[in-house]
Amino acid sequence: MGMTQTFSLSQQMQNYQYEIEEALDRLLSLRECPQREGLEAMRYSLLGGGKRIRAILTLEFARAYGVPKEQAMPFGAAVEMVHAYSLIHDDLPCMDDDDYRRGKPSCHRQFSEATAMLAGDGLLTHAFIAALEGGLRAGVQPNRAAEAALILAQGAGIDGMLGGQIMDLAMEGKKVEAELHQRMCAMKTGALIRSACLMGCALGAAGPQGRKITEEYADKIGLSFQMIDDILDCTGQQELLGKPVGSDAQQNKTTYVTLYGLERAKEMSQRQTEEALECLERLPLPDRFLAEFTEMLLARKF
Amino acid sequence: MGMTQTFSLSQQMQNYQYEIEEALDRLLSLRECPQREGLEAMRYSLLGGGKRIRAILTLEFARAYGVPKEQAMPFGAAVEMVHAYSLIHDDLPCMDDDDYRRGKPSCHRQFSEATAMLAGDGLLTHAFIAALEGGLRAGVQPNRAAEAALILAQGAGIDGMLGGQIMDLAMEGKKVEAELHQRMCAMKTGALIRSACLMGCALGAAGPQGRKITEEYADKIGLSFQMIDDILDCTGQQELLGKPVGSDAQQNKTTYVTLYGLERAKEMSQRQTEEALECLERLPLPDRFLAEFTEMLLARKF
Repeated sequence: MGMTQTFSLSQQMQNYQYEIEEALDRLLSLRECPQREGLEAMRYSLLGGGKRIRAILTLEFARAYGVPKEQAMPFGAAVEMVHAYSLIHDDLPCMDDDDYRRGKPSCHRQFSEATAMLAGDGLLTHAFIAALEGGLRAGVQPNRAAEAALILAQGAGIDGMLGGQIMDLAMEGKKVEAELHQRMCAMKTGALIRSACLMGCALGAAGPQGRKITEEYADKIGLSFQMIDDILDCTGQQELLGKPVGSDAQQNKTTYVTLYGLERAKEMSQRQTEEALECLERLPLPDRFLAEFTEMLLARKF
Repeated sequence: MGMTQTFSLSQQMQNYQYEIEEALDRLLSLRECPQREGLEAMRYSLLGGGKRIRAILTLEFARAYGVPKEQAMPFGAAVEMVHAYSLIHDDLPCMDDDDYRRGKPSCHRQFSEATAMLAGDGLLTHAFIAALEGGLRAGVQPNRAAEAALILAQGAGIDGMLGGQIMDLAMEGKKVEAELHQRMCAMKTGALIRSACLMGCALGAAGPQGRKITEEYADKIGLSFQMIDDILDCTGQQELLGKPVGSDAQQNKTTYVTLYGLERAKEMSQRQTEEALECLERLPLPDRFLAEFTEMLLARKF
């Protein structure tokens, strides 16, 4: 039975990834136009890679609340666009100055710094076009579309992901206490994951109780996700990660590993995942996919 | 009577500017938080300057279609946030590398390059928070709020302002034909002005005829606006402009002045403004304010 479940999980993951890739390609299609270079840079960073975890979360929570997949897809695509924008800008010379991303040259290495910055801006903007235009066209009720787009903006903005990046900048080279580090991670990594899940709830008009449990779930996997990132930066394989290993230590960054040590960080991430799974038991899920997906997030090697 | 009108125009402009400033301050308020540096950088570039032309256009078209001012204000504020973000990113070293903006240090000179880029990202994101959260809270119908937010994203995105910036980059140092230059300007400067006007129409559920005339008006003032920018770059006073004069010529940029000469560019801008005024006569405007405002845009010295 374990085998069957594993097989069906990876099959379902691949289906999702294929469908999401197809939607992204459609929602940001290449065409002849004078601004084509910008489109190419946006598509370079958006397409052909990524685990699509955030989009899958949107689709799964929407499914839990009975939303047709074609209505949820524009919002799943939108959160991937926001994620892709954040990676482009993170990689720029004035930020982390990373030459590689997912095993290929980062956007500013492939194009130019100016084009990469604009491509990031373009993806952030296009997220709202994809969500609102695509959502309304797919028949999402306008009040739900507006709410979901707002949830996305809040997760991405100064009190969400962007605020976390600002905090991260301010902490550079400083010794950071565990509490502030946790708060930074909850914003930098957690907020967009939370938005991904809550958009699904909003599209399905979930009640306050469902949303509350969803938030708890999202916060726990967000934390677990960051912990595993930190662990993999110490223990992962460069070929699988597509980026250099050990960069955190080199940069003297505060991570869950530097704060708690490798073993304790692993235990903590395990614990967060278990609690996330408990949250799922209290939600009206149609099947075990989301639970298996959550288990897989913990077990990931890249 | 001319005196009275001039007085009332400038009075009304000042009222608007005051109200818009107040709304921006409220929609992006300063508070103690770990991401405060980001908030400060966003507010540095957003507040305390700017003619607020775009917000005034949103408010005026909304007023023409009977929308209460408090419902239109979040969308007027949002378009100013998008405008402010575009200026921050334009000034960055990888773009125009400008040290001054509106007579004070540009955002990356006042803060850091990384903070400025994130502040731009934050303002773009916050535009959608301001529009959707502020709009819904003010009682805008969700379908109208969603449509207006979409119009904003489209004007800012790859087929709007951002596409124009990409084209501008590609044209750097090249001889550009008049037609392509016009298309670039229509996107880089015109698209956001068009969105500003059309958001007002969307909030007031204007019919297709009203929107068509509004688009014509917006495109004409957008062009006129760019022409005057180019003219002022040759003839303006640095103290009024708050930026160096003659920078276009220095950078060998194609402008309306290089394409047509100073006198012809002035005539063309005059012509666009007259045609814009004709458009206004075909719209259900409550008074002469928007016409006087349009005349003032042509007459501006900075």
